[in-house]
Amino acid sequence: MGMKVERLKRRFDEMAQIGATERGGVHRLALSDLDREARDLWTHWSEEAGFKVRVDDFGNMFARLEGNFPEKKPIVLGSHLDSVPKGGKFDGTLGVLVGFEIIESLQEKAEDLSCPLEVAVFTNEEGARFPTPMLGSGAITGVFSKQHVYDMQDDDGKRFEDELKRIGYQGEEKNRLKEVEAFIELHIEQGPLLEAREKPVGVVKGIQGLSWHRVQFIGESDHAGTTPLEHRKDPLLSAVKAISRINNWIHRLEDETLVTFGKFDTLPGSINVIPSEAVFSLDIRHPDHSVLLDRVETVKHLIREVALEDDTQSLCEDLSFMPPVAFDESLIDTLRESCRANEIDYLEMFSGAGHDAMYIDRLGKTVMIFTPSQAGKSHCEEEETDWEDIEKALRVMHDNVARLALTHQPAADE
Amino acid sequence: MGMKVERLKRRFDEMAQIGATERGGVHRLALSDLDREARDLWTHWSEEAGFKVRVDDFGNMFARLEGNFPEKKPIVLGSHLDSVPKGGKFDGTLGVLVGFEIIESLQEKAEDLSCPLEVAVFTNEEGARFPTPMLGSGAITGVFSKQHVYDMQDDDGKRFEDELKRIGYQGEEKNRLKEVEAFIELHIEQGPLLEAREKPVGVVKGIQGLSWHRVQFIGESDHAGTTPLEHRKDPLLSAVKAISRINNWIHRLEDETLVTFGKFDTLPGSINVIPSEAVFSLDIRHPDHSVLLDRVETVKHLIREVALEDDTQSLCEDLSFMPPVAFDESLIDTLRESCRANEIDYLEMFSGAGHDAMYIDRLGKTVMIFTPSQAGKSHCEEEETDWEDIEKALRVMHDNVARLALTHQPAADE
Repeated sequence: MGMKVERLKRRFDEMAQIGATERGGVHRLALSDLDREARDLWTHWSEEAGFKVRVDDFGNMFARLEGNFPEKKPIVLGSHLDSVPKGGKFDGTLGVLVGFEIIESLQEKAEDLSCPLEVAVFTNEEGARFPTPMLGSGAITGVFSKQHVYDMQDDDGKRFEDELKRIGYQGEEKNRLKEVEAFIELHIEQGPLLEAREKPVGVVKGIQGLSWHRVQFIGESDHAGTTPLEHRKDPLLSAVKAISRINNWIHRLEDETLVTFGKFDTLPGSINVIPSEAVFSLDIRHPDHSVLLDRVETVKHLIREVALEDDTQSLCEDLSFMPPVAFDESLIDTLRESCRANEIDYLEMFSGAGHDAMYIDRLGKTVMIFTPSQAGKSHCEEEETDWEDIEKALRVMHDNVARLALTHQPAADE
Repeated sequence: MGMKVERLKRRFDEMAQIGATERGGVHRLALSDLDREARDLWTHWSEEAGFKVRVDDFGNMFARLEGNFPEKKPIVLGSHLDSVPKGGKFDGTLGVLVGFEIIESLQEKAEDLSCPLEVAVFTNEEGARFPTPMLGSGAITGVFSKQHVYDMQDDDGKRFEDELKRIGYQGEEKNRLKEVEAFIELHIEQGPLLEAREKPVGVVKGIQGLSWHRVQFIGESDHAGTTPLEHRKDPLLSAVKAISRINNWIHRLEDETLVTFGKFDTLPGSINVIPSEAVFSLDIRHPDHSVLLDRVETVKHLIREVALEDDTQSLCEDLSFMPPVAFDESLIDTLRESCRANEIDYLEMFSGAGHDAMYIDRLGKTVMIFTPSQAGKSHCEEEETDWEDIEKALRVMHDNVARLALTHQPAADE
């Protein structure tokens, strides 16, 4: 079918040189000089391959294989090229380059395409430089206003728009991605499940939703040496009890609910003073909207229950809520078929992290494919994926795009 | 017997004007201009009453009623005049002024004294300005070296010695308190027990010891959205489990052990990142030396046990250890007799906070008397003690000093 894992690997290695870190990672923040280099290289490849490249007003880039039906909604593959500080070389880049390899390999069948094919590169997916993740894909799908995105500043006070102009990637609004026939994003898992279950490919059924909270217990600050235990109203002990209870409950559920307590702090925070306040953060995730809401309610109930028992006061502030995204059933089905047809074992799973696919889902049918992350590591220089696994994912995705885009359906062994 | 609660109250009110705060407290930091004013006033009263005043090289002050046996070791009463920022007017000052009232009232019996009587005012007891509590009493008992004390700096970088000179209270080394026949310190309880048990007087049998620790759990930082619960090594959950277990165990003991977790922190401290480290402080107290050591051992064992169960790592760093002080049995006995003779109900108890008596104990027999703190409050402007209770404590202490110092023992109703 013309697809060449060697060509993909060569391009991958060349891209990984841009912002390469000492320990094998990549440091390539959005709209930096290194991001410009990566964009230039990608544009060069696209033009070399004969694809039409367009850039929109947020710096999102699209390479297009038009075929005979330019008026049809495109099938879009892609991800992002920016990284977190000292991140890995696979995160984002792999999805962009696998997509590129697939549309390049389908060029010889351009006559048989039922719709255009595109590869997309979205701006500032990581939220590492400009502090909102999936900024480019969120902007073109109406999540963020243009002015808000343009005025965002990095830690040095540099504006998004100024940096976009500076690196020469401020395109036109008319170049934005509009409706899509399908968006298929390949990405590394960033978790340990595929490796643990020894599956080379993840068929991603959706992105779990999340709910963020700030939980505060208020008690009475007192002298650690003179206040008998039975006279204390210690908010730290209430917080500890609430965390224990929430955690035990979540473990007993044995479902997909995840809960994380990332921050914990006390006031006044002296070794010999019973705290007046204990504050912790709460991150709750579940792939189903109504179940997620239900989990949040129960957690809030457990918190109030502890405060009542301990005669302390509790406050559970809602910080952020992102509803789950369920990917398209027909696309998931086709993906399953592609795996089976290529005799590649797969795991059906949900994504724990956010991805551009979450927002592009608003423009049409969407699905994702995961490749394993060694030891579940990502956002670090140790991030690693086996090329054997990448080749399998490439085969599955190629088969998948062919099924969706070619009027003449290929057999698995064609 | 000549002691006058009205005179005590008048002096108390006058002293409370120096550094008076809006809400009825006192703000009088050690070696400040206000501390000088308080010292000047006390010196003025002492000289007015005919006592010999001396000041040592740390600014500790002593007023002396000599009697006929100047070569004998003195019985010393007293406490401190400095306060914490926006503190209460009773803490320290009450002990100084009650002591003063007692030796003044015993002036008329000077001929009958078997030893000299002194009132002591110790420098920087609170550790609020120069950050070591009981600095003056610790310095003259060899706990801190002179150079160390002199070089201590406040938050503005001002040296102890310079400030001592500036306010005119740098005296001579020969004026230090040496051996004492007895040191009796009256102080507010700074806890809720006397009020809760409705006792006007506390007979303090000793000062509990304390052991301070920094407990650290180390796990594996991971993505909150992609790491299944069973793959996590979450040090926060280990810390929470350890605190629960320690707290439950201490409660089951139902003895005098106190444990406080004043600080709690996580690394990296992001809402969507499973922490790599959780760190909390541990303050353990008990009045018995060997029991305290035993409690520390068990707590350390519980911490290791949790780390083993959770496959995290634990570290329990020893920060500070202050052994308990047991006051003199014969002095405690005499104090009980004084209470009974005056038909004043008392509670036998341990001090949870440190006091100058802790160090002066090294110079001779020592004991303390507590008066109730309303709602257990201290180190705040709301600090309050009933004058009815103070009068009872004054009677007990006067009777007590008379029993110890007068060759002719008074009857209770004399």
